[in-house]
Amino acid sequence: MRHLKIVSHSRTQGSEKLEFQDGTRYRFPYQALNDYQLQMYEEVAQEALSRAEITIQDIDLIVVGCAGMVQMIPSTSALLQERIGKGTGIPCFDVNSTCTSFVTALDVVGSLLETGRYHRALVVSGDLVSHYINPAQEESYRLFSDGAAAFIVEATEEEVGIVYASQETWSEGAHETEIRGGLTHLSPTLWSEDNAQEYLFDMDGFAVLKIAMRKLPKMFKRGLQESGLTVDHLDKLIPHQASPALSLVTKKLKLKEGQLIDYYAEFGNMVSASIPYTLSEALDRGEIQEGDLVALYGTAAGLTLNLMFLQL
Amino acid sequence: MRHLKIVSHSRTQGSEKLEFQDGTRYRFPYQALNDYQLQMYEEVAQEALSRAEITIQDIDLIVVGCAGMVQMIPSTSALLQERIGKGTGIPCFDVNSTCTSFVTALDVVGSLLETGRYHRALVVSGDLVSHYINPAQEESYRLFSDGAAAFIVEATEEEVGIVYASQETWSEGAHETEIRGGLTHLSPTLWSEDNAQEYLFDMDGFAVLKIAMRKLPKMFKRGLQESGLTVDHLDKLIPHQASPALSLVTKKLKLKEGQLIDYYAEFGNMVSASIPYTLSEALDRGEIQEGDLVALYGTAAGLTLNLMFLQL
Repeated sequence: MRHLKIVSHSRTQGSEKLEFQDGTRYRFPYQALNDYQLQMYEEVAQEALSRAEITIQDIDLIVVGCAGMVQMIPSTSALLQERIGKGTGIPCFDVNSTCTSFVTALDVVGSLLETGRYHRALVVSGDLVSHYINPAQEESYRLFSDGAAAFIVEATEEEVGIVYASQETWSEGAHETEIRGGLTHLSPTLWSEDNAQEYLFDMDGFAVLKIAMRKLPKMFKRGLQESGLTVDHLDKLIPHQASPALSLVTKKLKLKEGQLIDYYAEFGNMVSASIPYTLSEALDRGEIQEGDLVALYGTAAGLTLNLMFLQL
Repeated sequence: MRHLKIVSHSRTQGSEKLEFQDGTRYRFPYQALNDYQLQMYEEVAQEALSRAEITIQDIDLIVVGCAGMVQMIPSTSALLQERIGKGTGIPCFDVNSTCTSFVTALDVVGSLLETGRYHRALVVSGDLVSHYINPAQEESYRLFSDGAAAFIVEATEEEVGIVYASQETWSEGAHETEIRGGLTHLSPTLWSEDNAQEYLFDMDGFAVLKIAMRKLPKMFKRGLQESGLTVDHLDKLIPHQASPALSLVTKKLKLKEGQLIDYYAEFGNMVSASIPYTLSEALDRGEIQEGDLVALYGTAAGLTLNLMFLQL
């Protein structure tokens, strides 16, 4: 067990509500020059601090775990700190495993807290996906919402925290989900109307689902085995709210009614915010409570899979 | 002490040698569509494996710590895994604190190894800075080289590893070093000849140096105090090879002749590769040896400062 206690949490989403055939989405109006991503981060960070009744001075680490950064330089976490903690000197860094960045960030923070390196961390995840989704790719365009979530976690002597975590990256799927342009591989200078789609989100959803269906149940079973648990021990399962197919990959686990949290129709796929947004929402609805053992898991571009059993 | 043993290391640099007034630089020829960054990563990763006489199967974590990613999605570490370990499932994630990303990555990996989360990690840092430096900004243009370095580190019971680490981020300097365009803040779609500089590296070197001069010596002194060491205990100091001014910020520490490793004139500023490249070079030259206590430190965009005392 790597000890870690959730002190508080919060979440937000895009300002405009859109209705699609398979549910509601929240997005910001597209603007090629904008500050929406940092605006969301600032809002959730301030609200998490306020709900914890602490100030930024009580935090000794800021980690941003997101798929798409705000600028190439500096780190997104430094740009967030500028809005919520300028002058504090609080160390900042980014962690990126795309859609499951929050779980990876929590995995990293769990070890940093357990070894006494830090004591209380603010972890913020979220993406401005409306900036780079492609209206011409209907399959992926309808899936996404803009969103962000923040969790404040601290070292503790209570028996709560990360019971088990595992991660796998299967790069045979590296090009099933990607944005090729904008950075060193393909410069902004080559952008044109003709190759615009190279700078937008591109996904082969069926290929991703195929790898996920093959890899995730195995990973889950090994996780249960290695941690000496059964599915019945898990009060709730929070998958990355990727698509309407999200219950498919855990079908083999034979879950009980109500064990899986599925808000996909309500909020869509919020990329890196998806898992923490769902956890925060479920905590506020009382669907998850202190003392619960929850599984956080999902697939990300890479193709990366994460699994974490978290004792609250 | 977070235990961690260096198993092997390697480094590479840009293919073209350029002579500037204050030294030699290594850069790739500019190409708006290219694979140089991953090419460097692949080369150093393979060489580090080969020098360790192990295969990728012996690695259970791949971390890329760099300033500029290759693509916005997926993570740069997943794209590296595609070249060196497709089909292995080895978990991959990126860590970003810009120029000091390697030190932050090592700091993170140190805790992951110490808590038994992973056992042997490949950490790769490096940037294709020739892709985004601005020839019109002479002050910064002359500083940089392309480069990459890899370290394989493993858990150990020997008394070696991270004796002390600290990090600070002072976001009052967030805009002294930046690349504003290419991601969600400023889209590639707005690129034009007129605003091209918004998509290139922009630095106010004097402003950075001013913050560094004020913050770094204090951080260093506190680090020595908190770890019960004096400067004399440090066999070598490896600063981020930022500029010709690099000895200035440690002047107050009253170092002995030869204690500071300064290869800046030979290789230039290699951004995130700078510290690990220098460490690898110094190890191969015999300037640093097993048993040495070294300080890794420097400033990064953010403005972030890192300090680590590493017992080899």
